[in-house]
Amino acid sequence: MSQTAAPGDGTDCCPARPRSGGEAGSEREIVLVTGTGIDPALLEPLRLRGLELRTPPPLLSEDELIDALRGNVVAYLHGGEERATARALWEARHTLKVVAFLGVGYESFVDIRAADRLGIVVTNTPKAAADAVATFTVGQIINANWRIPRHLGDRYPYWRDPEELPHELAARTVGIIGMGTIGTRIARILTRGFGVRVAYYNRTRKPEIERELGIPFLTLHELAAASDILVVMVPETGKTRSMIDHGVIAEMRPGTILVNTARPAVVDPDALHAGLAEGRVGMAVFDGFYGRDLKAGRRLLDDFGDRLLVTGHIASHTRETMDRMVRQAVESIESVLQHKTSERSVGAHGRVCL
Amino acid sequence: MSQTAAPGDGTDCCPARPRSGGEAGSEREIVLVTGTGIDPALLEPLRLRGLELRTPPPLLSEDELIDALRGNVVAYLHGGEERATARALWEARHTLKVVAFLGVGYESFVDIRAADRLGIVVTNTPKAAADAVATFTVGQIINANWRIPRHLGDRYPYWRDPEELPHELAARTVGIIGMGTIGTRIARILTRGFGVRVAYYNRTRKPEIERELGIPFLTLHELAAASDILVVMVPETGKTRSMIDHGVIAEMRPGTILVNTARPAVVDPDALHAGLAEGRVGMAVFDGFYGRDLKAGRRLLDDFGDRLLVTGHIASHTRETMDRMVRQAVESIESVLQHKTSERSVGAHGRVCL
Repeated sequence: MSQTAAPGDGTDCCPARPRSGGEAGSEREIVLVTGTGIDPALLEPLRLRGLELRTPPPLLSEDELIDALRGNVVAYLHGGEERATARALWEARHTLKVVAFLGVGYESFVDIRAADRLGIVVTNTPKAAADAVATFTVGQIINANWRIPRHLGDRYPYWRDPEELPHELAARTVGIIGMGTIGTRIARILTRGFGVRVAYYNRTRKPEIERELGIPFLTLHELAAASDILVVMVPETGKTRSMIDHGVIAEMRPGTILVNTARPAVVDPDALHAGLAEGRVGMAVFDGFYGRDLKAGRRLLDDFGDRLLVTGHIASHTRETMDRMVRQAVESIESVLQHKTSERSVGAHGRVCL
Repeated sequence: MSQTAAPGDGTDCCPARPRSGGEAGSEREIVLVTGTGIDPALLEPLRLRGLELRTPPPLLSEDELIDALRGNVVAYLHGGEERATARALWEARHTLKVVAFLGVGYESFVDIRAADRLGIVVTNTPKAAADAVATFTVGQIINANWRIPRHLGDRYPYWRDPEELPHELAARTVGIIGMGTIGTRIARILTRGFGVRVAYYNRTRKPEIERELGIPFLTLHELAAASDILVVMVPETGKTRSMIDHGVIAEMRPGTILVNTARPAVVDPDALHAGLAEGRVGMAVFDGFYGRDLKAGRRLLDDFGDRLLVTGHIASHTRETMDRMVRQAVESIESVLQHKTSERSVGAHGRVCL
């Protein structure tokens, strides 16, 4: 097998790839499927095409993933929490044609630059989860505003001070960072459903949404200063990583609730620690937390665990959303295997030699 | 002190009451204030009228309440979880003119028949809490639907079976029992905000709400059969007590979520136990639970604690709602002390001799 590029060597074009079905001969083609909650019935179209399914237990380490990708794995439906690293993709480069990511924010889970270089198509499932994530986020806004976890259990609340009482949602200003499909849905629910005052920041202004919902555009720093509850709903990219930094948190008024149901890395963990220590951040909500190996994340849990409301990346885990995402991913896999491309592909694979 | 009627003697008219300020002479008049979270500044109007405030610790027993009502207590702002029983009211009958209940559903907290007989005016604070209770209820609907308490903590969910996944809220039918101020608000949030299918039952049909929100009226049993999530939002009265009984629960489909943010007694605890055992009730939500002395309540917690989502009667505990309710209660107390009546009085006191 001739191979010219090495992982991380910075070349922009991909190596010549052996034709699958060439060397592999009549060996069965395999689809690796990770994660839990996937309805096996929805994978049937792949089996009917003669593909074999491989479903390892969840939470794969890098080495376990490399093992799972061994053999004639041509497609990889990424529905778990594992990272498809440059090394793992490199090891699978001779057979793997497509990584179909279940969800939108693939950036933390798939090394897209490595995939691009190796000519592996990466797809995601845009919009499939918008309803679920928006509803979940609004639920967590209410939970954080009411400090619900503190009240679970049949315990009459002893408010030592009326200042401790939660504020009514309709009396709060909610700032939304990121007015994409999900952010817009959250803004609609809050304004139309609850009559909440909403303002937003987005890389580009959205005049039609401003008109529809009557919500003003503010700069990121203005929004941080104006909000009682600040919701982060941007994809993780090089530009958004640590977007909520010391500067943004310094603008917040004391007690601001920070709701991050996007990827954790969008919030700088050290800045958050300082914000919680100063009291500017009253409570922080995460759906999926900083990796277990990140010291700053552990420090947050140790020092301010009672002011963090953390769930394990479940916002999109509804039956309907999962089914929708799996159907899209299966379609993308079929499309790439057949036509070498998919309408849901992300990254720069279009520019590389397939 | 002449006194002719005894508690529970069934007479419909009240005894002759001594004039306060008569025997009591120049003794300072006292207002008993119970509960926590009340802003003392809002009680200032009472102190400016020369009234003394008495604020005992929360969760009074009957004997403690009787003690707290001793002396020249002319008014009682009921903001706690204690029961103003017939015996307690009877003991206070010579001085007490008004019980101003903080909230709407006074029935479980104030023995209204005893108060009526003793000529003690009871007031409540209608509509003050509608926004808070409706928002809280929607939050708990989302929490129950997602089984959030199970997911709190940084733990990746291991769905053994896709059947375990929560359904999307927009894919559920929510049945609302009780289309009063709060029920209507919940229906508006669910339909306008989340696009949820809603149906309702109410003692009397509400054609204007049916038209506004496009929601159908069903009988109670039809609604139980049609709903994925059944929300109870009726005041507790003799008629609504145990309204959700074996018959209603028998209509439910397996896994129905029962959300009771009204008073617990509206749901028959034995019927609920059977419903949880059979699996018709998948999860039950309460804000305020059955009294600690009720065996059936303890049995529910022991046998199905992980399928109960219980908070301690906090739905109306927002800063804005509490302030609104306290202002109304203070006005009612002033009105009764000055004019012997209040526009917010409940019960039959109008019919008894004041």
